[in-house]
Amino acid sequence: MGNLVVAQSGGPTAAINATLVGVISYAKESKQIKTIYGAKYGIEGMLAGEFFNFNAWLEQGGSLEQLLYTPSSALGSCRKKLEDGDEDTIQELIQQLKKKNIEYVLYIGGNDSMDTVAKLSKYCKENGIFDLTVVGIPKTIDNDLVGIDHCPGFGSAARYVATTCMELKKDSRVYNLPSVTIVEVMGRNAGWLTAASALSRENGQEGVDLIYVCERPFSKEQFIDDILELQKKQCSILIAVSEGLQGQDGTYLAEQEQEDVDDFGHPKLSGVGSVLEQYVREKIGCKVRSVELNVMQRCSGHITSKVDLVEAKTLGEKGCQYALEKKNGAMATLRRLGNAPYQVEYYATDVEQVANREKKIPLVWIVKEGNNVTREMVDYLKPLIQGEWKVRLKDGVPEYVTLF
Amino acid sequence: MGNLVVAQSGGPTAAINATLVGVISYAKESKQIKTIYGAKYGIEGMLAGEFFNFNAWLEQGGSLEQLLYTPSSALGSCRKKLEDGDEDTIQELIQQLKKKNIEYVLYIGGNDSMDTVAKLSKYCKENGIFDLTVVGIPKTIDNDLVGIDHCPGFGSAARYVATTCMELKKDSRVYNLPSVTIVEVMGRNAGWLTAASALSRENGQEGVDLIYVCERPFSKEQFIDDILELQKKQCSILIAVSEGLQGQDGTYLAEQEQEDVDDFGHPKLSGVGSVLEQYVREKIGCKVRSVELNVMQRCSGHITSKVDLVEAKTLGEKGCQYALEKKNGAMATLRRLGNAPYQVEYYATDVEQVANREKKIPLVWIVKEGNNVTREMVDYLKPLIQGEWKVRLKDGVPEYVTLF
Repeated sequence: MGNLVVAQSGGPTAAINATLVGVISYAKESKQIKTIYGAKYGIEGMLAGEFFNFNAWLEQGGSLEQLLYTPSSALGSCRKKLEDGDEDTIQELIQQLKKKNIEYVLYIGGNDSMDTVAKLSKYCKENGIFDLTVVGIPKTIDNDLVGIDHCPGFGSAARYVATTCMELKKDSRVYNLPSVTIVEVMGRNAGWLTAASALSRENGQEGVDLIYVCERPFSKEQFIDDILELQKKQCSILIAVSEGLQGQDGTYLAEQEQEDVDDFGHPKLSGVGSVLEQYVREKIGCKVRSVELNVMQRCSGHITSKVDLVEAKTLGEKGCQYALEKKNGAMATLRRLGNAPYQVEYYATDVEQVANREKKIPLVWIVKEGNNVTREMVDYLKPLIQGEWKVRLKDGVPEYVTLF
Repeated sequence: MGNLVVAQSGGPTAAINATLVGVISYAKESKQIKTIYGAKYGIEGMLAGEFFNFNAWLEQGGSLEQLLYTPSSALGSCRKKLEDGDEDTIQELIQQLKKKNIEYVLYIGGNDSMDTVAKLSKYCKENGIFDLTVVGIPKTIDNDLVGIDHCPGFGSAARYVATTCMELKKDSRVYNLPSVTIVEVMGRNAGWLTAASALSRENGQEGVDLIYVCERPFSKEQFIDDILELQKKQCSILIAVSEGLQGQDGTYLAEQEQEDVDDFGHPKLSGVGSVLEQYVREKIGCKVRSVELNVMQRCSGHITSKVDLVEAKTLGEKGCQYALEKKNGAMATLRRLGNAPYQVEYYATDVEQVANREKKIPLVWIVKEGNNVTREMVDYLKPLIQGEWKVRLKDGVPEYVTLF
C-alpha cells in the first residue's frame, strides 16, 4: 500500500480540475492507495517537497463537485521541463517522492509535460525502479496532441469561442455601415480552436464569415481581397484568425515581444489581431476592430462543455487505473467510435508517442481558398461542445474552489 | 387607433432586446395600437422609412422568448444625433412617421439618445403636434444616466465582469512567480462597470486586488507603489482599470487613435491596459499581462443577470404604457426601494433631466487611497447581478434571433 501524487503542468484549461477530480475519485476508492497527495506547481513542487494532502482536504469538507467545474489548475502549474540527460534532477525528484512513500505519479499536461512523464518513467525502467509508476493524462485547449482523438480542455474552449463569436457577430452588425471585426484566437502552431469558431454559424445562426488557421501560409493581399469580395454582399464581416498566423516566408505576422518568451522557450505571440486591424484600416478604410479572446478562452468555467468535463474526469479515472495496474510510461487516451451517436472509448497509449509532437489540422479540412474550414472539420468539432455543466452560483457568481 | 414604432440607439447591451420585448408585449395587448413597427437602425431608419413589422413577424412564429435573451440591438442601432436647431430633419422625421400613421414613438438608448427624445418631443409640444407621443427608455452598460437608480444592461455587463475577473484570478495564479494581470473595463467617464469587478471577490472568493476607476485622477507612481506593496504579501495580482483613466493633468492614459472618433464625436479609447502593462514591465519587470474585456462585456448573452433582464423588460412595458398615456417627453425609469429585500418601483421622469448628462460614481464610494471601492459601492452593485436567465441551447450554442 503506497501513496499517490497528482500534479498539473503547462497552460491551464477549464477542464483540468475535472481530470484531477477523476484521479482523486478513483484513488480514494482503491485499497492500494493510502494517501492522495497533490504536488504544488507541477514538478517544481515535487522537487521542493511541497505537497497538498487531499485526504485531509476531503475530511475537512472539500467538495469534489465544486472542484470539478473550477477552472484553471487548482494545484498550480509550472513550465519546468526535465532537460535531456539531467539525471541529477530526476534523482532528486525520485528522492522527494520516496520520502513521501509515493508509488504512483499522475501528471496532467500537454506535449511538453508528457516529455516529463516519458523521461521520468524511462529512467525508472532503465534503473530498475519498479516501485514507482508514472502515468500521463492529457490536457490542452490547443487540441494539438497526437495519440488522442481530441484533448480534454479543448471542447470547453471551443464552446467558449463558438458562443462568443455568435455574440460578437450580433454586436458587430448593429450599425448600418461596412465593418470588419477580427477575432484573435489562441493557437501558436495548430488552428483547432480557431476552426471551432465555425460552430458559431451552425443551426442557421450568423457567425464568423472567414476563418484563417495557422496551418496555411497567410497572404495579406488575399485577406484583403476576401474581405472586399464579401463586402459586395454584406455589411459587417466577422473574421477568426489564429494567433500564430505566418506569412508565405514563414515569419509570424504578430509582433514578437522578446520579453515574453515563455519558460519552454516558445515566443509568446500577441497582436496578430491588431496587425491585421491596422492593415484593413490602411487598405480598406472601413470601421475595423480587433478582439483578442485572450485567456478567457481557457478559463471560462461558467461556460464549459459537459462532454468535455465528463471525458476529462474519465481520463483522470483511467489514468489512475493504469497507474495502479503499473502501466509505467502510459498516457490515458481516447478514440472516437462514431458521431451518431457520439461515442468514445478509453485506452492506454505509450507516452513516448505523444511527447513533444504536435497534431495540426489536416489540410483537407481547410477549403482550398484557405479562408474557411470544411464540413468534415465541423462534423469533427460539433460533438465536443455539447451540453452544459451546472455551476453552483451564489449571489450571481460561481462558487469555485481554492485549494491553497 | 394608431401605430407604434420602437427603435434602438447607441451602443448595444445584452438586455436591450428585453426592453424591446417589453414594448412589444405591452403594445400587442393594447386596443389603442394597430401595428407595431420597429425602425431599423434608430432614427436613420425612421428617416429612410425603413420599418420592420412586428405583427407580421409574430404571425410568422417569431419568438419573443428568444428575442428577449438575444444580445445586441436586434433592430440595429445608430449614433446619429439631432443637431440643435435642425428643424428640417425633425420635420422630415415627423413626415415619415405620419406616412405610417405612427402615433407612438419609443426610443431605447443612452444619454445621447435621450437628447433625440427630448428634441423630438419638445418640437411636437411647441408646434401643436398632439398626435405624436415620444417616450424614452434607458439602456447602457455604463450605468451613467441620471434620473435612474441603475441602468438596464448594466447588471448583465456587471455580472460578466465579476465572473470573468473571478476566472482571470484563477488563471493568473497558477504559476508560482510574481505576476500582474491588468483588466481593462469599458467606461470612458464613469467607472461603474470597473467597480463591478469588486463583486469577483464576494463570498470568500479571490478576485481583483486593486481597482482604479476614472472618477479619480490616476497616478502611475502610486499605481506602481500599490503593486509593490501588495507583492510583499502575495504572488499574483489582479487589477481592474477603467478605459477612461486620466492622469493628474486630465489627459487620457490611453493612446488616442484619431481614426476612431465615434459619430457622437467622442474619442474612442483603447489601450490603457497595454499602456499600464508596458509601464509595469519597465518599472517592476515581473510577468505582466493585460486583458481587454472588449465588446464581450456588452454582448455576452449567455451570461446575463436575471434581475437586469426582468427590469429591462418591465421598463419596456412601462415605456409603452406612458406612451399610450400620452406622456410625451417622458422616460421610463426606476428607483430602488431597498436592498433587503431588493425592490424597485417604476415611474415616468422628464427626459430633459436625463439627456446629455452623466452620472459618475460618488467619490465617497472610492477608498481614500484611490485603489479600491467601498462596501457601500458593493452593496449598491450586488443585487443587480442576481439570477440567471435560461438561454435555449441547440448543439451547445445559444439559439438567438435575427430579425433581418
